[in-house]
Amino acid sequence: MDPKTKKAKTCWNVPASTIAEQTFNPIRNIVDSMKLTPNPEKEMIALSIGDPTVFGNLPDPEVAEEAVIAAVRARKSNGYGPSVGCKMAREAVAKHISTPSATVTAQDVILCSGCSSALDLCITCLANPGQNILIPRPGFSIYKTLAESLGISILMYDLIPEKSWEADLGHMEELIDVNTAAIIVTNPSNPCGSVYSQRHLEDILALAEKYKLPIIADEIYEHFVFPGLKYHPIASLTKDVPVLSCGGLTKRYLVPGWRLGWIIINDRHDVLTQVKSGLVRLSQRILGPNSLIQAAVPDILEKTPASFYLETLNYIKRNADVFYERLSAVPGLVPVMPQGAMYMMVGYDKDLFPEFKTDIDFTQSLVTEQSVFCLPSTCFQYSNYFRIVLTVPTEKVTEACDRIQEFCSNHYTDVLNGVNGHQH
Amino acid sequence: MDPKTKKAKTCWNVPASTIAEQTFNPIRNIVDSMKLTPNPEKEMIALSIGDPTVFGNLPDPEVAEEAVIAAVRARKSNGYGPSVGCKMAREAVAKHISTPSATVTAQDVILCSGCSSALDLCITCLANPGQNILIPRPGFSIYKTLAESLGISILMYDLIPEKSWEADLGHMEELIDVNTAAIIVTNPSNPCGSVYSQRHLEDILALAEKYKLPIIADEIYEHFVFPGLKYHPIASLTKDVPVLSCGGLTKRYLVPGWRLGWIIINDRHDVLTQVKSGLVRLSQRILGPNSLIQAAVPDILEKTPASFYLETLNYIKRNADVFYERLSAVPGLVPVMPQGAMYMMVGYDKDLFPEFKTDIDFTQSLVTEQSVFCLPSTCFQYSNYFRIVLTVPTEKVTEACDRIQEFCSNHYTDVLNGVNGHQH
Repeated sequence: MDPKTKKAKTCWNVPASTIAEQTFNPIRNIVDSMKLTPNPEKEMIALSIGDPTVFGNLPDPEVAEEAVIAAVRARKSNGYGPSVGCKMAREAVAKHISTPSATVTAQDVILCSGCSSALDLCITCLANPGQNILIPRPGFSIYKTLAESLGISILMYDLIPEKSWEADLGHMEELIDVNTAAIIVTNPSNPCGSVYSQRHLEDILALAEKYKLPIIADEIYEHFVFPGLKYHPIASLTKDVPVLSCGGLTKRYLVPGWRLGWIIINDRHDVLTQVKSGLVRLSQRILGPNSLIQAAVPDILEKTPASFYLETLNYIKRNADVFYERLSAVPGLVPVMPQGAMYMMVGYDKDLFPEFKTDIDFTQSLVTEQSVFCLPSTCFQYSNYFRIVLTVPTEKVTEACDRIQEFCSNHYTDVLNGVNGHQH
Repeated sequence: MDPKTKKAKTCWNVPASTIAEQTFNPIRNIVDSMKLTPNPEKEMIALSIGDPTVFGNLPDPEVAEEAVIAAVRARKSNGYGPSVGCKMAREAVAKHISTPSATVTAQDVILCSGCSSALDLCITCLANPGQNILIPRPGFSIYKTLAESLGISILMYDLIPEKSWEADLGHMEELIDVNTAAIIVTNPSNPCGSVYSQRHLEDILALAEKYKLPIIADEIYEHFVFPGLKYHPIASLTKDVPVLSCGGLTKRYLVPGWRLGWIIINDRHDVLTQVKSGLVRLSQRILGPNSLIQAAVPDILEKTPASFYLETLNYIKRNADVFYERLSAVPGLVPVMPQGAMYMMVGYDKDLFPEFKTDIDFTQSLVTEQSVFCLPSTCFQYSNYFRIVLTVPTEKVTEACDRIQEFCSNHYTDVLNGVNGHQH
């Protein structure tokens, strides 16, 4: 083309790409559009943020801090590592993750900048635009964000609150079509706090096996289960279904900001060879997580005392018990007792609160009147529930329950029986 | 679709996505395919790795270490921050980057997981599959990797070694077509070590203005120029051309592994409104860089003494001088004296080394015979050059020069004049 005859644009017009336009964080969109003006007479209690560090009541393990400081002082971890992560850290993760029935080596581990990045790589690597992936409903919103930004569709399989949020397997099977590329299984679950039994995980695996679909296991809450229950890595329950398991330091070690996630490639009969090299190549786009944290990974995984987890879990369980007991007694509310992670979903009977058209209205008014903020379940593609974060300081739990109770009592309207909260 | 009649796949077949298949790191591919067996009688000298930390001779600033350690001890930076980075760090970057003619605020700064991630976001946000971006040749390979993985084409404009690697503006203009979405300008340059004059940058801006093309400025080596020269941020030289400038702590503070990069959005007349919100949305895919490093950014940028940079730059300049003087005297070699960054490109007259078909053969034999490894310029989409890293300990510089000289002398073959290195 001759530059002299080339037609230049006459004015500036710089559009954003389709990928950028398609990237949406539903939580951000919903929360930003809500009118969140707390009652000035009551101090705000945020039961909304899934970040265990915000209240300062759950510090990270000391051994983690010392390991990072040692890495800084040693000056041996300031440089570029391999884009998949340094060998020592990958070895430590492999050792930490391996079970007798699902043994992996450093070669099967890719370190990422947080678990979000791990999920990003897995979804990007497994599906093409036009294909779809199955995700749970209610479910963590990032699956939707990541998939749809790349033009990958999401199909949502229902979780059943009456069965402690087990997946509706019939619904899951109905959704599967020729364009389905993978099934995402979240266990333990954000936002539900559910922990699946071996039996239920085996049922999901049977479906994956039947349709030859790989599983992306979001296991960022691995082992984050209440005392007496058992966590099963889904990969440990199958000899045939290939599983990409995503995890990281974030939740168990209470350091989400450190951005250290991982993908564990549980290949079966070498069906993931192409995917594995695809993941390695994709990791070269941003060249791995922070090197100081990588250097600290072996100490963090090997030396954090068991008492650290136990104390965290007991703390969360105690809060869950209080919330469950108190909210169960509130007419119109149906809390679902969690088994792990750090959340509880609380349903409300919409017929008994007819003033509120949606869970967004419900939670918005709870802020306006009682200065208590819970995420509406619309954030998780679900209706008529709200999510409570269980990591809040215990003294706030009682106060929050008192206020939620007062709110519900004020708005409870049993049309059939002629009871109206406002008249109490 | 009735699950009973649905046809399930009969065997496992899990392909990788097109994006994964299209992601290629040319350096990795080239280096991995080379036969790099050093001469067992000579210790290996790696002049190949663009990582200033590998030899331990260039430590990071103490103030940086103390700032990170303070962040760990304070326990206030373990949580999630905003996906675009925390306010304090963004403010510090804005202050650090602003010039009288290109003033930015925290709102114009997005923190990323390293400069690679910053470039990733910019390319992803500005171009769609089927469009193209202009990149320099020789140039840093990640532009190609990032663009092509998304189906965005690259068009390479030539840099002119005789003009200290200035861009061939005629060639650049020739390449621009209706599908061009942006021009990438690398200044100072990896792999060339060039630092552009105000005049040359203004000429590039005039072309961007003429065709209304935004500029992605790879300025990771900002201010990394040898004493006596001046670095001009390209955004400071235009009132009209929108510029996304990518930078970070990596090079100037010698901490590439810390993965703290940034995008500075230099909008002009509000033409980047859509792009800015696109970049913010894209940042939600991986939720920002490590929080401890973010917390340390203000101290690192404000308190690192000027002497720290000066010492680093003087060290690199001394090495550059030695390499340039020694290699200029080697028949057949044409080093190009750099003006900044940490690299020197060295050309060789291929007619005088007819044994070697390509720069890959040349550099491979240099390893086999002399245990000196330089990256062949094919890694940068260029021919008949090799790149030398200038951050090596000074004592290795002389030794490397001796060996390169011996190698060239052994292989120098002037067919016309009947001189053959082997017969010396």
